[in-house]
Amino acid sequence: MTDGPTARLPRFAVTLGDPGGIGPEVIVKALNDKKIRKRAAFRILGLGSVLDEAAERVGVTPYWERVPFDGADGATDNDPGVVLLDYEPAFAEPRIWPHDHNKPAGLLTSRFVDDAIAMTRLDQADPRHVDGLITAPISKEAWNLAGRGRFPGHTDLLQYRFNAPRVGMLFDSPSLRVILATVHLPLMDVRNVLTIGKVFDAIDLGNDACKQLGVAQPRIAVCGLNPHAGEGGLLGDEDSRLIAPAIEVSIENGVDARGPFPADTVFNNAVAGQYDLVVAMYHDQGLIPIKLLHHDCAVNMTVGLPTIRTSPDHGTAFDIAGTGTAHSGSMRAAVELALRLAERQRVS
Amino acid sequence: MTDGPTARLPRFAVTLGDPGGIGPEVIVKALNDKKIRKRAAFRILGLGSVLDEAAERVGVTPYWERVPFDGADGATDNDPGVVLLDYEPAFAEPRIWPHDHNKPAGLLTSRFVDDAIAMTRLDQADPRHVDGLITAPISKEAWNLAGRGRFPGHTDLLQYRFNAPRVGMLFDSPSLRVILATVHLPLMDVRNVLTIGKVFDAIDLGNDACKQLGVAQPRIAVCGLNPHAGEGGLLGDEDSRLIAPAIEVSIENGVDARGPFPADTVFNNAVAGQYDLVVAMYHDQGLIPIKLLHHDCAVNMTVGLPTIRTSPDHGTAFDIAGTGTAHSGSMRAAVELALRLAERQRVS
Repeated sequence: MTDGPTARLPRFAVTLGDPGGIGPEVIVKALNDKKIRKRAAFRILGLGSVLDEAAERVGVTPYWERVPFDGADGATDNDPGVVLLDYEPAFAEPRIWPHDHNKPAGLLTSRFVDDAIAMTRLDQADPRHVDGLITAPISKEAWNLAGRGRFPGHTDLLQYRFNAPRVGMLFDSPSLRVILATVHLPLMDVRNVLTIGKVFDAIDLGNDACKQLGVAQPRIAVCGLNPHAGEGGLLGDEDSRLIAPAIEVSIENGVDARGPFPADTVFNNAVAGQYDLVVAMYHDQGLIPIKLLHHDCAVNMTVGLPTIRTSPDHGTAFDIAGTGTAHSGSMRAAVELALRLAERQRVS
Repeated sequence: MTDGPTARLPRFAVTLGDPGGIGPEVIVKALNDKKIRKRAAFRILGLGSVLDEAAERVGVTPYWERVPFDGADGATDNDPGVVLLDYEPAFAEPRIWPHDHNKPAGLLTSRFVDDAIAMTRLDQADPRHVDGLITAPISKEAWNLAGRGRFPGHTDLLQYRFNAPRVGMLFDSPSLRVILATVHLPLMDVRNVLTIGKVFDAIDLGNDACKQLGVAQPRIAVCGLNPHAGEGGLLGDEDSRLIAPAIEVSIENGVDARGPFPADTVFNNAVAGQYDLVVAMYHDQGLIPIKLLHHDCAVNMTVGLPTIRTSPDHGTAFDIAGTGTAHSGSMRAAVELALRLAERQRVS
């Protein structure tokens, strides 16, 4: 950290996620560590009764200061620690939230994210300004029920609100880093979405992200789309028609990108240390290895936004919500990655 | 093993695979164990000079008896150990084989497999009869160059030669077992191939295979095709339209099948012991987790044939062929799985 105007601690908005999911519980657990809380100011956009209930369930003494949401500017900007910006009772009646996809939850959770985005846009001098978002999981179906179906998830909403020309969904974990060229769409629609530009953007954004994460010269492996990366054209042509040209353009732009490689072996080579990042062509191609290796500590990071955004790699987990058994490792890792990114920004 | 006419040792044909690939080397290494060689009669269909060269490279003293291919019936059927049925010089000039895809290799390797298949069809009393095939990797491009393009791989050729109505490609490993509903085809062609029947067959064949492997009541998890198994229809309809009905029919047939589950978490649950088998919808969905967890000891087993067939889960690896560095763990596991299947057949 340097002195001067940027010497204040980082500030983050933490969105509650679906109140009927495991979000409240993993937030309570992940921030239940004084060392973490000293490194930044965390502003939880959420519901007091839900957070209290989660704390009681997991045996944590509430460590947050409660401020009604409208009074957010009352929070002292340089104070580290956790402030709950409470939407109850002004914007949400205290109630028991069901562990399912429902419209009221969809309306509320999209509002949390919208408000958090607005906080990133405030002037740095504004005490409500935040340097980034840490988002707990929402239900896409609930967003759909709430009329937010055009945004299949946080990433799409963030891209729209920030008018970002391109964003990337990157997963960071202790032994493997993956960025996706396409995200939440039916697998068979990949053919309508995957282009040389999409692959190039994923490589390029991934290269930027690796540098933000401290890798000076990122070594990037790119997956093929087809089995055995198309096996010389026998098993599909996207590998040679779309992916290889994107790699060539990346190399011309000074990026150390290689491939396309068969997806069933490239992850081994990345884990063995040959690559800093693997570019996967679609959701499961990248998420299967990430979750298999690090199901409790992988982090989703959005690249290409003018702000920091991290989130755990799991969903609402309605099936175990309310039982107190949710693992908070991934949310904890999301908090730590956001801190790392903010602290690196301040140094550079 | 029981007494009587089936009390003889199992006999296997071992096909050399591409002479320019790592097949010869991994065969030499995998069978370089007297304990293994005492449990069966292994008949390598291959090339004497290539096998000798591989043995010298890895420092193994040849342990096989060489018999010219036409003299195969000279081999004593009840003798355990290894006999090389040599195609040199009658059917192949001794030469240096390049580490690449070429037509002569394609012609030769498809002949090895055809001849091995013929050996399975001989009468049990015929000394040349074998109980199954263990196949080293071939080059699909070489088969294509040799006019065998209609068979993308061993499995397709075996299905055709045996006129098998349905076959399954199953991968066995210490912590995870996977069967594929579709195999070697361009990913975007899955839409043209995946049907309720295909998914049902994979579940059903996988259930049979688990029983052959000694699992009395197989518990089977079925992957979705789309991200998050379609997330309730938001991300594609194949999960509800094709996969769920196939699971229902399987359950009606007494199979313990469940799903469709999101592919990015189901493998964790299988590895944790909740399932004996995962049914994957396409090649990389199943092979990424298998190779990530067990890149050196997973085995490919063909289900639905009237004979045993196993093979290592890797390819020709032309890039490291001839260097003596190939790992033989997967070929060794293929030999052991074939032995286990044959010995179980004899007991039952």
